[in-house]
Amino acid sequence: MDTEQLKQKILDGDRRALARAITLVESGRADHRSMAQELLSELAKHKRQSLRIGLSGTPGVGKSTFIESFGMMLTALGLRVAVLAVDPSSARSGGSILGDKTRMERLSRERNAFIRPSPSQTHLGGVARRSREAVALCEAAGFDVVLVETVGVGQSETVVAEMSDLFLLLLAPAGGDELQGVKRGIMEMADLILVNKADGPLKPVATRTCADYAGALRLLRKRPQDPEGFPKALMVSAVEEHGLEQAWEEMQALTAWRRENGHWDRRRADQSCYWFDQEVRQALLARLHTASAQTAMAALSGQVAEGALTPAAAAEQMLQDHLKG
Amino acid sequence: MDTEQLKQKILDGDRRALARAITLVESGRADHRSMAQELLSELAKHKRQSLRIGLSGTPGVGKSTFIESFGMMLTALGLRVAVLAVDPSSARSGGSILGDKTRMERLSRERNAFIRPSPSQTHLGGVARRSREAVALCEAAGFDVVLVETVGVGQSETVVAEMSDLFLLLLAPAGGDELQGVKRGIMEMADLILVNKADGPLKPVATRTCADYAGALRLLRKRPQDPEGFPKALMVSAVEEHGLEQAWEEMQALTAWRRENGHWDRRRADQSCYWFDQEVRQALLARLHTASAQTAMAALSGQVAEGALTPAAAAEQMLQDHLKG
Repeated sequence: MDTEQLKQKILDGDRRALARAITLVESGRADHRSMAQELLSELAKHKRQSLRIGLSGTPGVGKSTFIESFGMMLTALGLRVAVLAVDPSSARSGGSILGDKTRMERLSRERNAFIRPSPSQTHLGGVARRSREAVALCEAAGFDVVLVETVGVGQSETVVAEMSDLFLLLLAPAGGDELQGVKRGIMEMADLILVNKADGPLKPVATRTCADYAGALRLLRKRPQDPEGFPKALMVSAVEEHGLEQAWEEMQALTAWRRENGHWDRRRADQSCYWFDQEVRQALLARLHTASAQTAMAALSGQVAEGALTPAAAAEQMLQDHLKG
Repeated sequence: MDTEQLKQKILDGDRRALARAITLVESGRADHRSMAQELLSELAKHKRQSLRIGLSGTPGVGKSTFIESFGMMLTALGLRVAVLAVDPSSARSGGSILGDKTRMERLSRERNAFIRPSPSQTHLGGVARRSREAVALCEAAGFDVVLVETVGVGQSETVVAEMSDLFLLLLAPAGGDELQGVKRGIMEMADLILVNKADGPLKPVATRTCADYAGALRLLRKRPQDPEGFPKALMVSAVEEHGLEQAWEEMQALTAWRRENGHWDRRRADQSCYWFDQEVRQALLARLHTASAQTAMAALSGQVAEGALTPAAAAEQMLQDHLKG
């Protein structure tokens, strides 16, 4: 299948073509890369947009169950839903989030749902680009909602937030002390905080946790991209399927407001520029990874370690002799 | 004064020459930069080493008082002490740590002490290089101990740890909950945790805090560069000048062990290679800061924001047309 055919099938919403195109953007081969670039450029002309929802939560908060229940609710509303994952740890652990589709058994059987496990990658930069391009492919394939899941480790939340229109933080009910466990930076990224497991014996704890976070959110400075009352903290039960409709209504309200007030378009443009900048930086630094650059770095490192060259003098030599700009 | 004269005066321990040389490495001017490089390369040949002690602690833990008391104790032992600061926030706040020498009134009057406020810099990369080079100048000037102070913000602790032989974390007495406030990564960097203000009414709290941290340190994996029992948590009172001798004895014991076991030299070599690598990366990325690169980036960003180019396609164009390697 050539790029033109692949493009057409993706625009027609063909899931196998979509899966194949994602494999293409995940490939490290140069010919695949240039095909992927061409495909993405062509598809971008159609300017199709999904609602891209980023979702973060540490292991154990019930992310898979939430995505399953929330995704099923959306498909029941007639919406098409794609689920992707950004998992910088998968290269190390071998495993990957969403690796086991059985964790979302019902949703994976849905005709209007598309679930793609995260690829194993070597570094977050690569993970970020491939995920972002997979999101773009899902948008071109006409999905109404693209959910991008991540585990809350290191920079992965920033990466996901920079490719999402809405950012959700999923939390488990917990004592007041653990409020501190959520980094301020992550709180500030969240559009909605969802306290999951608001069911059974945990319900009272969930209620308190939700109130704590609502209080904490009120202490944050109001952001220009938010209408009155946002960001919000809500309770949900993914298992009992409670609170999901309300959460969806809040997401829609927030989205509508941002579209009307120009924030949606501005944020999309800012994100594209952010990724452009990131790509340029990564490409520059990639010049250090060629075999000849590595050899030169190793030789100079040896001299630096012995004290024969200062770090700055060695760097100057490296730049002049091997990385001439 | 030419570079040769400046070099000789620094080697003679002349404080005014040292101050002048630090001003030189802090300068952004190209001619200053090349003079600084030459000077540092020449001085490096003398292979003089100080004990470089990194010290981190959030505002309010009593860093200045500690440095004053600890520094006075060292000079009383006949040692020469230099105090520098790494402050990535100074560019923003305008103020700088150590900016006010009156905060260390006694030490600043000591003939065997040299205190240098942190320069105002625009980014942590610049702060890091200049601080590292200032440390090298102090070493060449024959100081026995170089103390490098930083506020615990962002990456500044890593920067200081990478230019230190020992890393101290200064803490205030606090309830058990606040134990969580110290990031695990920082705990893992520390060679000694010093709980300050172990005096007056805070003494019982300090005792408990110290025991809590000692317990937390025992949970960390033993590091190859540590003899049995390290890292340690100790109580000190900078105001009452208690515990400082003991802390100094521990530092000397740790240093002696590391020298004997080859960790000292290896760590120094590793640090130099780390900074070499950082310098190369920064120099590569600096190519984005030229006027012509900025103009090209802005133009391409405009097309990316409009959706006329994908981020990856724009990056490719930037690399090919403006940053040809």
